[in-house]
Amino acid sequence: MQITLEDLKINADFVERRIVSFIKEKVQEAKAKGGVIGLSGGVDSTTTAYLAVRALGKERVIGLIMPDRRTTPLEDVRDALEVAKRLGIRYYLVDITDLYDTVSKIIPIFKPENFKANGNIRARLRMIILYYYANSLDYMVIGTGDRSELLIGYFTKYGDGGVDILPIGCLYKTQVRQMAAHLNVPKRIVSKPSSPRLWPGHEAEKELGLGYEEIDLILHGLIDLKMEPKEVAKATGLDIWKVMKVKDMIEHSKHKRSTPPTPKIPGLNEV
Amino acid sequence: MQITLEDLKINADFVERRIVSFIKEKVQEAKAKGGVIGLSGGVDSTTTAYLAVRALGKERVIGLIMPDRRTTPLEDVRDALEVAKRLGIRYYLVDITDLYDTVSKIIPIFKPENFKANGNIRARLRMIILYYYANSLDYMVIGTGDRSELLIGYFTKYGDGGVDILPIGCLYKTQVRQMAAHLNVPKRIVSKPSSPRLWPGHEAEKELGLGYEEIDLILHGLIDLKMEPKEVAKATGLDIWKVMKVKDMIEHSKHKRSTPPTPKIPGLNEV
Repeated sequence: MQITLEDLKINADFVERRIVSFIKEKVQEAKAKGGVIGLSGGVDSTTTAYLAVRALGKERVIGLIMPDRRTTPLEDVRDALEVAKRLGIRYYLVDITDLYDTVSKIIPIFKPENFKANGNIRARLRMIILYYYANSLDYMVIGTGDRSELLIGYFTKYGDGGVDILPIGCLYKTQVRQMAAHLNVPKRIVSKPSSPRLWPGHEAEKELGLGYEEIDLILHGLIDLKMEPKEVAKATGLDIWKVMKVKDMIEHSKHKRSTPPTPKIPGLNEV
Repeated sequence: MQITLEDLKINADFVERRIVSFIKEKVQEAKAKGGVIGLSGGVDSTTTAYLAVRALGKERVIGLIMPDRRTTPLEDVRDALEVAKRLGIRYYLVDITDLYDTVSKIIPIFKPENFKANGNIRARLRMIILYYYANSLDYMVIGTGDRSELLIGYFTKYGDGGVDILPIGCLYKTQVRQMAAHLNVPKRIVSKPSSPRLWPGHEAEKELGLGYEEIDLILHGLIDLKMEPKEVAKATGLDIWKVMKVKDMIEHSKHKRSTPPTPKIPGLNEV
C-alpha cells in the first residue's frame, strides 16, 4: 500500500458547504450575533475568514490584526489588511508590542531568551483581545487552527487554541491550501510558508524539522488509516524517525486537546 | 425524598488521600517538576495549595499572588501571603494593575463600564502569568476551580478555567469548605464569602442571586440524582425558579466544559 498526496485531495465544493453550515449552526446555537477572527495574513486565518463571511455575511464578521513589531513581518500585516478589504469586513489593527513589553516587565522571572514561553505570551494576549470583542459584542471567537496543528499540538494552549469553534479543524494543512485555492484566496497567501510568528524568523517547518506535506501523509497513515509507524514509513516512503516524531507529538499534546482532568472519586460524582 | 446538606458530607480523610494521589499521578505523567498555583486568599485556592503541598512537597509548589489594586481587597493579599508562609512554599507577588491598564488602552473598543468583559481580562492575564512560570520551570498549572463553579460555568473560559489539572474539581463548594476545615486552613479563610473579585465589590453569591448551599443542593439533585427540576424543588424546599436558574446555568455553560468543536464531515476523519 502507498500513501500519496492524491489521498488527501478533498471535494472542495462539498467541504466548503459543510463548513459554512457548521459555522452558521454554531453561531445560531450560541445565540451569538457574529464572529471575530484573528487575521495573521496566513493561509489558515484567511481561509477561515472567507468561510465565515460566506456563512454569516460580511456585516457579522470582524477581523483583528494583532502584530507585534518585533516578530510580525510587515508583509503579513499587508496581507491581512488586503484580506479584510477584499472581504469588506470591519477590522481593527491592534499593535500588541507595548502590551508584551508590559507583561515582560511585571513577571519577576521573565527572560528575553525564553523564546517558547515568550511566544506563548503573544498568542495568549491575542486571545484576550479577541475575547474582549466577543464579550462586548456578543460574538463568538472563531478559531483558525487546522487539523495538522491540532493533532501534533502545534498551537498555544489557551492562546490560539483558546477559541469557541474550529471551522477548519477538520482539514489538514495541505487540504486548507486546496480549500484556499478553491475560494480564490490571493495566490501569495495560498502558497506562503506556514508560521505562527511567535519569535523573529519563526517558521513552522523549520521549527518542526518536517514539511507539512510529510506531516499530513504521516497523520493520514497513523490516524485515519490506524497504521503502525513501520507501515506508515513504508507506505509514505518517509524515514521512520519522521513517523516516530509525529507520533510523539500527537501523544505529548493530548492534554491540549482535552479539558483539564478532575479526580474520579467513588461516591463523588463527576463533572 | 429530601435533600439536605447532610447528603453533601464527605469523608474528608479518604477524599484527601485520593486528591493527593491524583495530583502526584498527573504531575508524574506529564513529567513536570512541580506545580504553580494562583493564590487569591480564598477557600478554593488555599485548599488546593494545601493539597498540592501534601502531594508534591513544599519545594515543588509555587504560589503566585496577583492582585489588581482596584479590585483585590487588601485582606485577600494578606490571607494569600499567610497561606504561602504557613505552607513554606516559594511565592511571588505580581501586581497586575498596570498590565490591565495597558490592555485597556490598546483595545479600541474598551469601555470601563463593561464589568464582565473587563473582569475576564483580569482572569486571563493571571492565566498568562501562571503559564509563564509553568513554561519556564517545567511546572504544571494547578487549577483551583471547584465542582459547583465548573458545573454552573462560574469561571472565565481560558482565564481561571485555563489550567492543566483541577484537583478540587470533584468537590462542591460546601465540600471544599469541609476539606479546608479538615486540613486546618485558617478559619477566616474557611468561612470567607466566595468571590472571583473581578470588579470592585464583586461577590459570587450577590452576582448569582443564590447561596452556594442552595446551589450545591440543587446541583446534587439535578446532576448526581438526575432528578427533574420540580422534584428537586420539592426535595430541597427551594423555589422552583432557583432550580431553573441553576439548570439554565448548567446548560448555557456547556461550551466552557468542552474543547472547541470542529465540523464532522463524512470522508474527513475527526481530530
